[in-house]
Order: sequence, then structure tokens, then C-alpha cells
Amino acid sequence: MSELKWKKGVAVAGVGLSKFGAFKEKNSRDLFVEAYQDMINSMQRYNPEKVEAFYLGNFSSDQFEKQAHLAPILASWIGLSPITALRIEDACASSGVALRQAALAIASGQYDVVLVGGVEKMTSLEIAAVTEALATAADTQFEVSAGFTFPGFYAAMATAYMHEFQASREAFYHVSIKNRNNGALNEYAQFGQTIFDIMESKKRRAVQKGLPVPEWKDEIEFLSDPKGNPMVAWPMTLFDCSPVSDGAAVALLVSEEIASSLTDTPIYMIGSGQASDGALPERENLYSIPAAVEASRQAYQMANLTPDDIDVAEVHDCFTIAEIIATEDLGFFERGEGWKAAIEGKTSRDGSRPVNTSGGLKSKGHPVGATGVGQIVEIWKQLNGLAEERQVQGDPKIGLTHNVGGSGQTCVVNIFERRG
Amino acid sequence: MSELKWKKGVAVAGVGLSKFGAFKEKNSRDLFVEAYQDMINSMQRYNPEKVEAFYLGNFSSDQFEKQAHLAPILASWIGLSPITALRIEDACASSGVALRQAALAIASGQYDVVLVGGVEKMTSLEIAAVTEALATAADTQFEVSAGFTFPGFYAAMATAYMHEFQASREAFYHVSIKNRNNGALNEYAQFGQTIFDIMESKKRRAVQKGLPVPEWKDEIEFLSDPKGNPMVAWPMTLFDCSPVSDGAAVALLVSEEIASSLTDTPIYMIGSGQASDGALPERENLYSIPAAVEASRQAYQMANLTPDDIDVAEVHDCFTIAEIIATEDLGFFERGEGWKAAIEGKTSRDGSRPVNTSGGLKSKGHPVGATGVGQIVEIWKQLNGLAEERQVQGDPKIGLTHNVGGSGQTCVVNIFERRG
Repeated sequence: MSELKWKKGVAVAGVGLSKFGAFKEKNSRDLFVEAYQDMINSMQRYNPEKVEAFYLGNFSSDQFEKQAHLAPILASWIGLSPITALRIEDACASSGVALRQAALAIASGQYDVVLVGGVEKMTSLEIAAVTEALATAADTQFEVSAGFTFPGFYAAMATAYMHEFQASREAFYHVSIKNRNNGALNEYAQFGQTIFDIMESKKRRAVQKGLPVPEWKDEIEFLSDPKGNPMVAWPMTLFDCSPVSDGAAVALLVSEEIASSLTDTPIYMIGSGQASDGALPERENLYSIPAAVEASRQAYQMANLTPDDIDVAEVHDCFTIAEIIATEDLGFFERGEGWKAAIEGKTSRDGSRPVNTSGGLKSKGHPVGATGVGQIVEIWKQLNGLAEERQVQGDPKIGLTHNVGGSGQTCVVNIFERRG
Repeated sequence: MSELKWKKGVAVAGVGLSKFGAFKEKNSRDLFVEAYQDMINSMQRYNPEKVEAFYLGNFSSDQFEKQAHLAPILASWIGLSPITALRIEDACASSGVALRQAALAIASGQYDVVLVGGVEKMTSLEIAAVTEALATAADTQFEVSAGFTFPGFYAAMATAYMHEFQASREAFYHVSIKNRNNGALNEYAQFGQTIFDIMESKKRRAVQKGLPVPEWKDEIEFLSDPKGNPMVAWPMTLFDCSPVSDGAAVALLVSEEIASSLTDTPIYMIGSGQASDGALPERENLYSIPAAVEASRQAYQMANLTPDDIDVAEVHDCFTIAEIIATEDLGFFERGEGWKAAIEGKTSRDGSRPVNTSGGLKSKGHPVGATGVGQIVEIWKQLNGLAEERQVQGDPKIGLTHNVGGSGQTCVVNIFERRG
């Protein structure tokens, strides 16, 4: 029914991030301003007077900060009233969806310049309350009432995956090690330490305290040992999980024809797709996320590309199993082959298919409403050769983002291209 | 900057409402299904397989039902997975904004058929908790911390308005009487009783109990008497306030060229505008809502119409003062003249400028996330001559909706036309 080509082309003219982490002293406004200023620094010719609308992705400042209606409040906070301002919520996919909606608004002819933001301030609540707030992203009636919280969902998926494909837990550890290695090179990331760093510091601490020094010969041994890496929900361990984070991300979306008037480093949005699904009990199996398969199908079709054309991707690794499933849902690897690819290093920065060079949700952090736009920040940097020590070699031109909400009730996939 | 004309035209092909009210036994899913079925009944040729996306306006099911991520859950609930599903939040303007965003998505060329919904289940919380949840729609840092809740905001506006224009409280009572009269003719409305009905039943009850019978000679006397109509926040009395409500509303938005293939009674969306603002302390005055002035300016400009062209309007009367200010912000009356127009009956069904023929938020009810689409339901009925006893005479062709979020941090105005 719908046309594949939008009525107008859309580009990303600038991007910005706050530092991700746990910042007791900062609220959503502080985090957002930090990201907004970072975006202004990324652009050569930003003019706030040209901004016509503000699309905010946010999961639940209602619950985290007792502040709903956050979009006009943030717009006012940075002096952009009376522009159109709205919040979009699709759980952890909120800002990936906000970016897609902003793109459609530009494609409609309504706007030429739209600020897209994502923000989440999570550490305002105690950790048990955070888990409870996050659980509202699942189906309260059929999932949460059965005792599920998010580590449980992804543990169930991991179990199903391992069973179906005879996968080993080692594959998850490789994802964890890779993303921690990448995140350690990202100054915005919540975690600066690699798994190796953590292992070594635990050994040093044992020496200092005169305790028996653990004999982990490498990171895999460390991660396999509950003394180094406690179990959360089998088979998901502590280092399989993304953290609770505070953070914000912004991107300036503009119509294609004015992009170069604002920046020397635009990237163009050439594909986009979004799909939804019901609760986990309704799925045919637990080792794939149908909404991701469908969203990526739409995005590839619109971009007229295949998975092999993607040079670099940021995927939704809220848990390590999620990254492995994502690389299959996106068609990077055959179904059941993703775990082997992780072990073989194919998704490393220097692998054939670099995934989560930013460190991903696991290491960069996962302020849930900020994650979708945060992914686009990394793609913008990689495509423009601005990712510093994390830069993927071989002149990447096409990048993809994959942002999941809930246990797969939402997925949005966006594809970007650098031209010239 | 932005073009005035969207790249594609947009029409409303069908509409539906649940009954509005306080329904302890119904949750958001029940209410939504009720509205969805009502919409299907309003259409001649509905085909769910043609629906490509679902845009949901909802203020805070997070707080009311511990259920965020509601859009894909409702889409799944009515069998529409894996279509795109997202929630839009702009406080009490959530579904008016959702409808506008859905229209932009159609105008972009992405979709041809989009289901737009609005829902709020509010009576799941005790009344004090509802007030607290609603207060998160205001600015927590600068408004709520100063002790304001919503009756207080609108009481402050009413006080400023009365002071500036020497308006009398009688004007508010006329709004209350009118909207109760209209709502009593609306089978979906929360309140079936007019103010006259309530007054008479209080008299009867006094007789039955052998108590002194109050000598109210008309509704104005009744409303002026704190024994009939207690004060909430001066000068806003109980009957100046909209109620706490449960309810849902849906509309099917389609591209103009396919509208007649789905329905014999389309209306066309010919104007739309949206604007934002900061908190109350930042406003120049408290007797107008700048975001409403700006949103209506955009909508009139896009539609190439003036306020005098509007045959029927649904405006955001969360409090009676809000309706009076709205009729000025929209340009129906000069600034400072709205209160006189209310007293003179100009906004009655048979007046020169019918406003809130549905009963408005005051009488139809105000399930906050459902209100914006609920307004469009009434406009669709009025323009198609389907409003039964509430039908405005004179063959209305142009209708307007005005939906406000918070204390005016958001306003969205949409204009519709019946053709032929």
C-alpha cells in the first residue's frame, strides 16, 4: 500500500551525547542540555531559530522523576518555545521511533529542521524500583503478572537459543568482552574498563588484601566464574546485562536539500522500518524477534539494500543474547549462526561485520529513552570518520541502527548513508 | 520555512468512542476495544488488513495502570501486529497530537491507512493519587514544587481573567450549564444530568428528608450557592471542573485519495497546527494561552481560513475558564469578550458560534489521553449531520478541534472539512 520512497529526503545534520553513567546530581534537563551543547559543537552552521519542532524519545520520566509532559518543558528549557514539541514512547525504542517520526514529518513537507532528543534519568530511583518501572514496558497483564522482569525475558530467550542451536554461553561472553573493549575507547561511555581490566583489578585487590588470588587465565575464564561474574538469571550473568544509566542524546534532522547549508558532515536517512508484536507467550519461538525481522525487511526494501551492504551497525544489546539474535534478525548471519560469528570475532571492530563499535548498551550504557538516538550518534561518527580510536577501517559508507522496545514488542531499524 | 501544504491530503474515514465514565471493571484494553468496535460500526467498508500503523495518545498508563509501552500491546490486542505502533504523550493533548502526527506520516507517503487512538484509565487510582499523577503534566520543578495542581493553575488564570476584563463568575456558570445541557444529549457522555436536573434532584431529596428546601430560582442561583456547588479553588467551583474519567476514542486516518473507498462519510483534514510553551511563571499574562494562539494561527494559515469560517468547534474545557479563554485564543471573539459571549449564549448549539456540542470535557468526560481524538469524533458527527439531538443546524461544513496539554505547555489545533 504505502510508497517506498518518502516525498522528501531526510538527513542527519548534527548529533550530540551527554556522558552516560550514574549521575546523582543531574536530572533530565541537565543531561539533555549537555547533549544539546555537544550537538551544537558537532555542527558548523547551527542556527536554533531554524528549528521548527522537537521530537523527544523518553520511556518514563513520569515514573523516574514524576515529570510527564517532558517535551515542551525541555524545548522551553533550551529556549525553543513555541515550536511543536512532543514525546514518543515505545519503551527502550522510544528515541529510535522518535527519530523515524521526525523523519516522516520532514518527508511530509511540514518541517525542514527538527531536533530529535532522547533522555532518561534512571538513578533517581532505588534499583528495585528501577526494575519495577522497567517492568511496565512488558505486558503487565500477561508477562509481569507471571513473574517476569527483563533479565528473565532475555534469559528465556537465551535458553531457547542455546537449546535450539546448541550454542554455548561462551558466545555471550565474547559479546560482553567485545563491547567492553569498544566502550573503553568511547569517552561518553558509562564503563571505561574492559573485562580484562576488571579481571586484573580483582586479582590486584586479592593480592592487596592477602586473599587467595583467582587463577583466571583469560576473560572467558573470569566470566565463567561466578566469583568474578555472578549469575543474574540463568544463563544471563552480571556482565551479560546492560546497566542502569542516566543520559541523553540528540540529533538534528533536516530535509535533504538544506543539509549542506548547516553542516559539512551530513548523513542521509535512506531506509527505515518499524514493526510491533504482542507479548512473549504469543511468539512462535523465543530465539528470534519477529518485529526486528519485519522492521529490517522494510528498511532494506526502502533503501534497496541487502544486509551485506551494511558497513557498520549499532544493535540493541540490552543483554548479550539480544545482540546475537539481532545479528540474525538483521540478516547479518544465518539463523543459528550468530553465536559462532560472535566467537569468531566477526562482529569486532576489525571483523567482517562490525557491531556496536560504541560499546553498545552494555558498555556505553542504556538510559533507555536515549538509546535509539545514541545509536545514531555512533553511526554518524563512523560514517564521517570521526570515531577516533573506535573508527572502523575501510571507509564505511552505510550504517544501520536497530532499537528494540520491551521484550520485542517494538523494533525500529534505520539505515544511513554518507554520500561523496 | 516549512511548506504550508502537505505532500498528500489526509481524511478521517471513521471514528469511534467508548462510553466515557468511571468504570471500575474496565481497563485500557477494554475501553479501547469498545471504541474500536464503535469505529468499525461507523464505517461502510473497513478492512483491518489495510491498517499500516497505530498512533496512540495516552498520558500516563505508566502511573495509572503500571503499563507503559501501551501502543504495541493494544495493537496486538485487536490483532493488528506487526504494524508500526507508537505512543505519543503531550499530557492532555496526547491524542490530538497523535492524530496530527499520524496525518504527517500519511502526508509523507509512508502510510495510507493509520489507526489513531486515545485512551486513559484514571479511576484505577484513588482521587488524591489521580491529582498527583495529573500534576506530573505540569512543571515539577517550577510549578508543582510551588504547590500548584491543575485546579490551582486554572483558578489563577480565571482570577487574572476576571481582574483584567472585569468578568463575572456568572460567565463560568453559563459554560457549565451549556456543556451539561449538550452532554445530556450525548449517549457517550459521563454525565447525563443537566445542571437543572441536579438542582431539581437536590430539592427533591431535601423534601424527602424533611429538610429545608433550597430556594434556587434557576441554575445560576444554584451554581452560586456553595451548598449546591462547593468551591474547589476560587473562583473554580465543583461544576467548573471536568471530571476524572475512563474512556477511549479512535479515528481512522487515510490518504485523501482512498477515503471514499472506505467510507461514504469522510471529512478532510485541511488545517493543523501545534505549539509549545514553558511553565506558567514564564508567561506574559495568565488570561491567554500563547501556544493556542500560535497553533490556531498555523492551522488557519494552512487551511486558508479565518475564525469566522469555523461552523462548529470542540475546545479544551478542562475548566470553564479554559473554554472562555479558548474562544478568544482561537479568534472566535475579541480578547476580553469571550465571557460576555458565553453569557449571551453565542456558544450554544443554536448560537452564532457553537462550541462543545458534545458536552465538552466538562460533561462528556475527560479521560485525558482520549480527549483529543474524542473531540474529532464529535466534529465528524456534526459535519456529517450525524449528531442526532445535538446536531447544529445550518449544514456545518468546517469544524475545529482545540486540545491543550498541561497548563498550556502544548496546544494542537486541527481543522476539518466536509466536501460536497
